[in-house]
Formats: sequence, C-alpha cells, structure tokens
Amino acid sequence: MSAQDSLHAFFHPDTVAVIGASATPGKVGHTIVSNMLNAGFSGKLFPVNPKGGSIEGLDVISDIADLPRGLDLGVVSVPPQFVIPSIKALAEIGTKSAIVITAGFKEVGTEGYHMEQEIIALCEEHDMALLGPNCLGMMNTAAGVNASFAAGQPSPGSIAFFSQSGALCVAILDWALGANVGFSKFVSLGNKAVLDEADMLDYLNEDEATKVILGYIENVEHGDAFLKAAHKACLNKPVIMIKSGKTAAGAKAASSHTGAIAGSDQSYTAAFHKSGVIRVGDVASLFNLAQAFSCQPLPKGPNLAVVTNSGGPGILAADAADRSCLTMAALSQRTIQKLQEFLPSYAAFYNPVDIIGDADADRYARTLDVVAEDPMVHSIMVLLTPTASVEIEKTAQSVIRIARKCGKPVFACFMGKTRVAKARELLMEADIPCYAFPIAAVHAIETMYEYYLWKSRSKPEFKEVERDLETARGLIREHEQRKQAEIVEFEAQQMLQAYGLPTPKTVLARSSDEAVAAAEEIGYPVVLKIASPDISHKSDVGGVRVNLGNATAVLNAFKQITAQAQRMRREAYIAGCLVQEMAPAGVKEVIIGFKRDEQFGPMLMFGLGGIYVEIMKDISFRLAPLSRQDAFKIVREIKSYMLLKGLKGEQPVNFTALQDIILAMSQLALDHPQILEAEFNPVLVNHERALVADVRMTLQLKND
Amino acid sequence: MSAQDSLHAFFHPDTVAVIGASATPGKVGHTIVSNMLNAGFSGKLFPVNPKGGSIEGLDVISDIADLPRGLDLGVVSVPPQFVIPSIKALAEIGTKSAIVITAGFKEVGTEGYHMEQEIIALCEEHDMALLGPNCLGMMNTAAGVNASFAAGQPSPGSIAFFSQSGALCVAILDWALGANVGFSKFVSLGNKAVLDEADMLDYLNEDEATKVILGYIENVEHGDAFLKAAHKACLNKPVIMIKSGKTAAGAKAASSHTGAIAGSDQSYTAAFHKSGVIRVGDVASLFNLAQAFSCQPLPKGPNLAVVTNSGGPGILAADAADRSCLTMAALSQRTIQKLQEFLPSYAAFYNPVDIIGDADADRYARTLDVVAEDPMVHSIMVLLTPTASVEIEKTAQSVIRIARKCGKPVFACFMGKTRVAKARELLMEADIPCYAFPIAAVHAIETMYEYYLWKSRSKPEFKEVERDLETARGLIREHEQRKQAEIVEFEAQQMLQAYGLPTPKTVLARSSDEAVAAAEEIGYPVVLKIASPDISHKSDVGGVRVNLGNATAVLNAFKQITAQAQRMRREAYIAGCLVQEMAPAGVKEVIIGFKRDEQFGPMLMFGLGGIYVEIMKDISFRLAPLSRQDAFKIVREIKSYMLLKGLKGEQPVNFTALQDIILAMSQLALDHPQILEAEFNPVLVNHERALVADVRMTLQLKND
Repeated sequence: MSAQDSLHAFFHPDTVAVIGASATPGKVGHTIVSNMLNAGFSGKLFPVNPKGGSIEGLDVISDIADLPRGLDLGVVSVPPQFVIPSIKALAEIGTKSAIVITAGFKEVGTEGYHMEQEIIALCEEHDMALLGPNCLGMMNTAAGVNASFAAGQPSPGSIAFFSQSGALCVAILDWALGANVGFSKFVSLGNKAVLDEADMLDYLNEDEATKVILGYIENVEHGDAFLKAAHKACLNKPVIMIKSGKTAAGAKAASSHTGAIAGSDQSYTAAFHKSGVIRVGDVASLFNLAQAFSCQPLPKGPNLAVVTNSGGPGILAADAADRSCLTMAALSQRTIQKLQEFLPSYAAFYNPVDIIGDADADRYARTLDVVAEDPMVHSIMVLLTPTASVEIEKTAQSVIRIARKCGKPVFACFMGKTRVAKARELLMEADIPCYAFPIAAVHAIETMYEYYLWKSRSKPEFKEVERDLETARGLIREHEQRKQAEIVEFEAQQMLQAYGLPTPKTVLARSSDEAVAAAEEIGYPVVLKIASPDISHKSDVGGVRVNLGNATAVLNAFKQITAQAQRMRREAYIAGCLVQEMAPAGVKEVIIGFKRDEQFGPMLMFGLGGIYVEIMKDISFRLAPLSRQDAFKIVREIKSYMLLKGLKGEQPVNFTALQDIILAMSQLALDHPQILEAEFNPVLVNHERALVADVRMTLQLKND
Repeated sequence: MSAQDSLHAFFHPDTVAVIGASATPGKVGHTIVSNMLNAGFSGKLFPVNPKGGSIEGLDVISDIADLPRGLDLGVVSVPPQFVIPSIKALAEIGTKSAIVITAGFKEVGTEGYHMEQEIIALCEEHDMALLGPNCLGMMNTAAGVNASFAAGQPSPGSIAFFSQSGALCVAILDWALGANVGFSKFVSLGNKAVLDEADMLDYLNEDEATKVILGYIENVEHGDAFLKAAHKACLNKPVIMIKSGKTAAGAKAASSHTGAIAGSDQSYTAAFHKSGVIRVGDVASLFNLAQAFSCQPLPKGPNLAVVTNSGGPGILAADAADRSCLTMAALSQRTIQKLQEFLPSYAAFYNPVDIIGDADADRYARTLDVVAEDPMVHSIMVLLTPTASVEIEKTAQSVIRIARKCGKPVFACFMGKTRVAKARELLMEADIPCYAFPIAAVHAIETMYEYYLWKSRSKPEFKEVERDLETARGLIREHEQRKQAEIVEFEAQQMLQAYGLPTPKTVLARSSDEAVAAAEEIGYPVVLKIASPDISHKSDVGGVRVNLGNATAVLNAFKQITAQAQRMRREAYIAGCLVQEMAPAGVKEVIIGFKRDEQFGPMLMFGLGGIYVEIMKDISFRLAPLSRQDAFKIVREIKSYMLLKGLKGEQPVNFTALQDIILAMSQLALDHPQILEAEFNPVLVNHERALVADVRMTLQLKND
C-alpha cells in the first residue's frame, strides 16, 4: 500500500473504530464518538471497549480482534500503557491508519520515548499511517469525519490547517467558529511519530477540496522530505506557515515543550524561502492571508489602484502600499480622461482615486469599471467610509459584479463595523476579502504578488561544477585517517584547485634567489609569508611582509623572515617562504561560507568582509544546492551590494567570477557531507577577477 | 478670556445654537440637532434657520442676533457663502466657540483659502475658539454633547480621539460601536483653521475624563506649539498617534487631500520622539494600545512572566517577547520552589510557566498568586487555551482578583472566540485587556514599558554652549550683505572658532620656508593645500598633498602645488599653502549635520562618514535643542556604533569630545535661524580627540 493510499484511508475512512470509547459524556472516549456522529459520518463507526454495552446507540465491540479486517482508521484513546497493545491488535487485523490521542510519550521522558519508538517500528512493519501520539485528532469536513475530541465542529471550507500544537488547534477552532472560517482538513500533528508536516503537504497538495494550506510547526525533523514536499505543494497552491521557537527564548520554551530541538531560525527562513513557503509571525496574519488567497486570483504585477470615497483612509492605503513591494499604479491618460467625464470636478483623478464623500453606488461602479480596464492596473482596493450618502450594500454588489468580470484581484476595505456588517457579509460570501482598515488589505495583496513572482520566476538552472572529485575525496580521507578536523594550508589549496577555484598566484621559494625569481615571474608587488608546517600563526613570528616592490625588498624580506622565525621557533622546520601576488588596488573583500544545518543541510552565506558581516550583520543565506539564479541573488540581497556595484564611477566587480565561486562552494558542500563548515575568507574581487585568498574547512570526524 | 476658558465653553457648553438647522431628517442640519438631543444634552439648544418653525419640538430662531448673548457654542452648517456672515453674527453676540461643519474652504482652492483666512481673522479679533471648517463635529460623552452629524452615539469612556480626517472619524465611530469602545471626547479637526492638535493636546491633558489621548494627523503646521503641548501632555498621560502621508506616495495623496504640505517623515519621527508621543502605523494598534494604557498600570521593568495551560501558545508569547524590548523573567528559586509544592510534576516551572491542559481555575489562581509575588516579575500575561477541563469564567475571575491586589500590570490572552467570549467580557469590564492571540498582548506591554522608560528617564540637561555670538552674527550679516549663501573656507573656520570647535592645526604659509617652519611646529606628517580665494575645488588643480613626512617633502610639495596652480589658473591670486596636521592613524570619520525643518526647526543628524551614511543609511536624528542625554544617545543609536566603541582591542573614540561638537552644532542651529543647513564632514575622531576637518553652511538669503 502506498503512503497516499493509507493517507486516503486516513482522511476518507469508510470504517472507523474508537479504541477506548466511553459512555460517559465529557470523557475523551465519548467526545470522539459523538464528534464523529455529529459530523455526519456516513461510514461504519465502531466504539471499542472491553466493558461492552452501547454508546450513543451504537453497540460497543469488546475486542479489537472482532473489528472488520482492513479497518480504515483506528482512533486510540486509552491509557499510555495500553496504546502499544492496541496498535498491535489493530495491525493484526490489517488496519490502514490510526490516530493516537493519548499523551505520555516522547514529551515526558526516556520511557515515553522508547514506547514511541516501538509504535514507529510497528507502523513501519505493518505499513500503517499514524497520527500523534499526544494530539487532538483530525477532521475532514467534506467527508463528515471528526476524529478528534475538540469542542465544536468547523464548517466546510477550502482552507487546510495542520498544527504541531494541539492547544493552538483548540484555540483556532474556537476562533474560527466565531469568525465563520471554514476548513477542508484540520489536523493536530502531536508528536509526529509517523505522519508529519511533509506527509500533510504531500496529501493536501493533491487534495482538491483544499485551496490554501496553513501550518503551525515548532520544528522539522526530516529536512529533505519537508523541502521536497513543501516545494511541490507551493508550485501548486499557497502554503502559509508559522514556525515558532524563532528566538533564543522561544526556542528554550520549544525544547521543554515537545522535546524537539528547534533548528536555527535562519535555516528555517532559508528553507521556507527555497521551497516557496510563506512565513508569517502570528495567527491573525495566517488567516488574513488564507482568506485572500482562497478567494482572489493572484495579482500579475505590482500596480495597485485604490478607489475611495474619503481622503484620509486613501492616504493610509497609499502609505501602506509604498512601504510594501507594491506600487501605486500610475493611471493611463485615457483612464483619467474617462473618469473626468463623469466624476465631479473636485474628485481626485489620480491614484488613490477619491470619488468624494457624497459618492453613491453608481459612482463607485462607473469608477471601478474604468479603473479595472486600465491595463497598467494589476490589483484594486475599494475603500469605503460609511458616510451618510454612501449606499453601502449596493456598492458591495457593484464591487462583486466588477470583480467577477475583470479577472483582476479585487479587495474591499469597508471601514468600520456595525454599518458595514451586512455589506461585509455579502462581499465575503461572494469571495471578496473585506477588511476594516487598509493596512491588512495591502499586506494581503503584497504577499499574493510575492507568491506570484515566486511561482512565475524562471526555472532554476542547476549545473554541476567541474571538479576533480577523486583528489578532493582523497584529501578528506587522509584527514579522517589522521583524525585531523581542520583542512588548512597546502592541502586546503589543493582542495581549491580540485574545484577549479582561482587563488592568488603562490610559489614556494626555498631560497632568497628563488623568492626573487618567483616575484619576477608573478610581478611586483608581492607578499612573502613564512612556510613552515610547525608555524600556524605566521604573524606571531613576524612571518608576513606585504607590498614588496622590488628584488632588493624581496631578498631582504626573505632573509629577515626566515632568520627571525628560526630564532623564535628553534624546533620548527622552515621550508622557506611563500611568494604571493598582492591584491590589486580597488579590490573588495567578501566572505563566502557554508554551515551544515542539522535539518536542512548546507546553508551558504555571503557577505562583505570585516565590519559588514561582523557589525552590520549584512549577510544573505541560501540552502544548497544553489541554482545560477540563487547565486545571482545571494550577492545582490546584501545592503552593501552597492559597494560591489561600484560607487562614484568605480567599475562594478566581476559578479560572474564571484557567482562561480559561490556555485563551487555549493558543489563542495554537496559533494562531501563530512565537511561541517567551510569559509573562503577573504575572497578578493575587483572588476577583473575574484580570488580565494584564504580558506578554512572543518570536518566532522567520526567517533570510534 | 483664556484659550482654556473658550475651550471649556466649547467642550462643556450650556448653550448651543445650530446655525442651518433643518426640519428634514437626513439633512446635516437636522442630524446635528437630533444628535444633540439623543446625546442627552441638558443645556439650552437653539435651532437657527431664517425659515423659522420648529424642529424636534424646539422653536426655531430665525436670526442669530436673537440668540442669547455670550452663547457657548455655535455649530455652523450653512452653504459656504453664508459661513462668514454667520461667524460675524455669532461674534457680535459674543459667542465663545464655534464649529464650522461646512466644507469648501482651503481644501478647494484659492477662493476658499481666502475665505478661511477671513474666518481666522474674525476668530482672532473676537477671541473665539473654532473647530473646522470641513469637519464632522465634536462629541463630549460625559457632558451629553454630540455636536456632529455622525451616525451613532459612542458610549462614554476614558479615551479621547481627534482626527484630521473626517472619514476616519466616521469609520472609527462605526467600528467602536461594534467593538464596544467608549470615548471621553471625539473631535474631527477638519481644516484646523483655528483649533488644531496642539489645542486638543493642551485641553485633553487637563481633562480628567481622559486617560489616553489618540490622534490621527496628516500634517502639523505649528511645530513649536505642537512640541510644547505634546510634551506636556505626554508627561501626564499617554498620547498615541498616527501620522499619515509617511512615504513619498502617501505624501502625494496628503497634499491633494487637504492642501497640507506634509513635512518630511523623519522630522515627524524626531518630533514624536522628542515629545514622547507614541507613533503607530494603523488604527488597530491605536485602539489595541489605548485599551491597554487606559486600564492597566505601567510595567516598572522589562521582565514578563507568562502563565499558560498549553505549550504552543506559550512559545508564541516567548518568541514575541524576545523580539521586543521585554525579557522573559527569570523566576526566583523561591518562586519555583513554591510552584513545585502544588503544580503537577509534569508542569513547566520556568517561564513560560506551563500549568498543563488539565489546569482548573484554582491551579491558575495559586500559580498567579505565586508568580505575581516574585519581585523580579514586572508584568504578567495569563494565557488560556479553552481545553475541555479549563474553567474559563472562573479563571477570568481569579485573574481579576489577582490583578486588583498585585499592583502589577496583568494582561489576559484567552485564545479563541466563542467559548471565551463571556470571560473576555468579564475581563474587559474589570479593566483587564484580553486578546485572542499573544502577539498583540506582547506589543501592548512593550509599548507601555517604553512609555514608562520615557517618563522615568533622567531630567534632560540643557546647557548653553560658550561661544562668541558677536563674531558669529557678524559673519552671517556680512554674508547676507554680500548675498553669499555659502559660508566656506576661512570664514567657516572663523565660525568654528567662535563656537570653540576644535579644528586640525592649520597655518597659512606664504613661502616654502614658512611652510617648512609651520610643519616643524605642527609636527610631521602634514597636509599641504593650495590657498587661493579663486580656487574652490583644490584637487582639480592638484592642490592637495597628504602625508608629507619631512622638510624636503614639504618644500617640494609647496613649490609644485603653487607652480601648478598658477600654471592652470593664470588669473588666480595664490596666497600660498595651508599647512595642516594629518589625521592620526586609527581615526574615524563621522558626519554631524543639521537641516532646518519647516515645521519643527533644526533637526540634527549623526552618522559614520562615507558608505555608512550613503549606502547603509545608518543615521540617527534629533530635534534641537539637544540635551546632554540626547547627544549621548544620538551617537549610540547608529548600528555602526561598535566601530566607534572599538573592535578587537581598539580603544574607544573620545565620545565626550564628539558629543561636545554635537551640542555646539545644536547651539549654532538655535542661534542663527538664517542657517538653513550645516554639515561638519568629516569630523575626525580617535581615542584622544575630535576635530572638525571640513565644514559647509548654507544661509537662507532674504529676497528683496
């Protein structure tokens, strides 16, 4: 049985058993049975309890073994010590899927952890989809399934929601009942022993009843599966998520809660970015956006037009648009002329189009008709202040009519509460999102446009970097055998060469004559560095001299460096000096690095060297593998990008060369899972070329 | 009559006349009369209309002249051309205050502007307080006054609101009726011909019925009056405002709306900061904060404790706290021990204190009692998820009891909507703000704490900088006489000297010998610059040489510079060379400048030179006059402050010297209103001292 099959049995069961069903109202085992009945479940429902009897008119089965073979869904709500026997019994009759409501597993300590491991093993062995343990349950409104002990039954809708926090499920259900928000599927993930967010994303992506997927997670354990599932789903429909445990304090609370170790927040941001998931910070935004996405088409461009009957709110909307990635549309001359034909002379014909406080529904309709036709308008916000003369419901009807025919996203902001309540209802029923104040509307439009941009971006181009894998693997193997975690110096240089990475010309000179010859070949000025396997901090022994401009200078420097080093480190073997070309004037120093994230693998980092990274925290991130487009963008996302582009007539740096190094770093990270961290620092770049001037790599050595 | 007296007559009138009263329901002149009656006005109400008759049982007066002398308030709602005659007639009977509802003045063009000017003159002559024109009117709920044509009567409350946008008044009134938010005063400012936000702030500051002042403004015309009134009010009660027209697009909409020219947004931010006004971006935050401020004491420290019955929401709260200026309180060992005495072993005893899903009201109460007693806890958030076992209303009552006795601010976040509705009502009635999700609660607590910090900050110390005012004024006078807007070079140096500002040692050398002598005195290395009143861009003629390390170098440089300059500019008078000390190594370059804002006067700017200001926009602002504390902070607010503090063992720069220059700049800006802009750029600072190396000043020359 495929995973999709068992998930189908899970969400669309024909036969459901409640293990631990109870006749006592208020008990979890009773609530689940009555929730299933109240949801209008049309399949067969079996309460199971050794005591027998009947519950809500249904005969109680006293033994799991008596249930029909190939049961679709078993909902387990028994004390923790009886959970494993129940799962075993369910497995024996070939049950396809299960929900374990019971708590007391991984989240309470070692014993619970081991019990949970046993459940996982059973599910794997018997190919059973399992939700929980330690969860509220699951609902599928369209199929009349409410296999949960939640209070209240949500109405059907096109929004799917899954949550790692059962409490948030409870709160959101109660809130949604009050706010009249419907759901297609509603899932409390619990400890995610078997089914997790990736399984949900895979299933909900295919689910035709679901238009928007919402999720609340505290951690991701299987980064690869998540990235794959999320990316696939995002290409098809919007996925909006809260990832909590964002900050240090939050993460502390998270680990004491479910025993989950929250990954670093930056890696989640990078993972969401890579897969196209829209990240929000609070529940209000989650549903605000879900509403907008579920009923309006995506804006195909940034230009927003605002039609309003009052100035102040128009300004608030324009302010909000200007702070967003949207632009206030410049209306065409033709549009303005058409508006002038029928709007009063004291109206504002430019965007926001202010049709003045005495506007009736007809004036709104005619204005919207004209504005919606302007090809430079990509989305429309209809602002209405409930003035005395405005025809609120009639205007709502005009908005609905125009939204239906224009094919562009239309958002309403009918300001206030009581007098606009009826109109808001009309609009919402007709799938026009309606807001009380302009800011939330602008935020929704902006997010939808960003998602449009993400979906319509050019296909990422991935290309393997040419490299000498054998050499690279050999180097790592040698280090592993020597139990040497750091790859430095000469061997690090070999690694760079294996990846075709450009480095400053460097020659080992064993005598001052050789040094001068090398300098002549490289070209002045040069740098001299002491070359000794026994001296790691060269400058401690005065072992570095820069800007040596002629033969005499090189000659003297060689003698002084080697003599002083030998004097200071009598035991050291001095091989000679490295002669290296100097960085030319106008060169910029950048840092290219990666760190292997536990959940999501190698995360690349780019930033300008020194202060920009350290003090200004001006860094951009991407998860490997990076596409050519990623390499293009990671360089341009930093604030100090202008410095690379060149100030005051300076030439821009060679971006292609820089991007090639970034792509090589991405390849390096993918090729060798043994490398924990690597950093090219500094990379020297000017308008001609980019050179990796220094490098450090750290291996993860296996413990014996 | 003082301004406060006429404002008292305005807000607490015993006699009110409605000029332009109408018997036809739906007409503005009728709505005002019925609003006054419905509000329960207990004074005398006079409808005025030449047609006579009666309105709502009141005899209509046909002529303003027949109204009682010394009328408290006249509400004018007549066609624009009759407004001025009405105001005149009201003035003649000694009317104390008026509201002009009628639109068609400054906002429609030149003619309207002149009519408005005439109204202003009349009010000044007759000492009449006047609201509008072009406004919705005013309400004072406690006095039974609703002198507006708004639909709906708000309930009494402790929040005052004034708005430059009538539409926003309409929307907020409607919203408040639905959300059950009450108001003390509600004012639509309209065109602000006479009464403006400063008058409101002055009055509402003294108004005992008002605990929190809210405002929406699009511009401020009288910066000084605003700053004074706002600062006085903020010392007494919180003032929370929206200033729209924030961005370029927004500002465009603002100017087409009320003909107001929006000041630059940064100057408003600086003005709000200086006066203590809390600035918010949207209406939702405005009322969210008003609610919190109006009913809870201010937190006296940053430490927040969260008590919750569920993990997920606790994490969301901790995340939000960590992103704010609050900290999650570290509970004392004693508190934790006390909690362990009665909480189940699987509870989380650290903050957030998770008392687990099966918590009843008693467990909440005992936990809150203990946590509230911890001296390291400054504010408390009670999080409740409506699980099956929680006693929602009973818990609300415990929260109310503990909040009353503990003296610390307590905020509730009862998650959801329907099941917590009753409890939320109980809490709100008992002055405990209650939120549906944690983020808004944390934002409110954070803002209250920031206001606490602002109120309890040390008294600003202002000290006049010693300076030679006579010289400075003389210099400016000379420039004005010469119609020379830029103060440069030698005269700029004189200005610096007049303000005791340290500059690099500079000597004018007329010969190479004098140059060498000067260099010897200053100390090597030195800089040589061509000195000629006819050469403004020195480097164009090769007129600057830096880092001259000995007498020979100075000698040669002098000869080459002067010869080359004379060759390139044959007509120029070459006075010789300026010999200047070199900036020592390790010196940082900063920029100190000011720009005179139309509304708020001189705004000082501080930032690190070059890239930091230009590319990273890393700048801080303050309005003059700067206190010693302001000078301290303006330097430390920039992100690149760490560079001044010193990296990797570097010594910090001489901050006192830097602050002295900033204070001198502030004094300079205050002393000479003729200076439009000035900039010290760069100011060279190291651990020893700070020098003003270059300066430019621009005067505002009067037109003849």
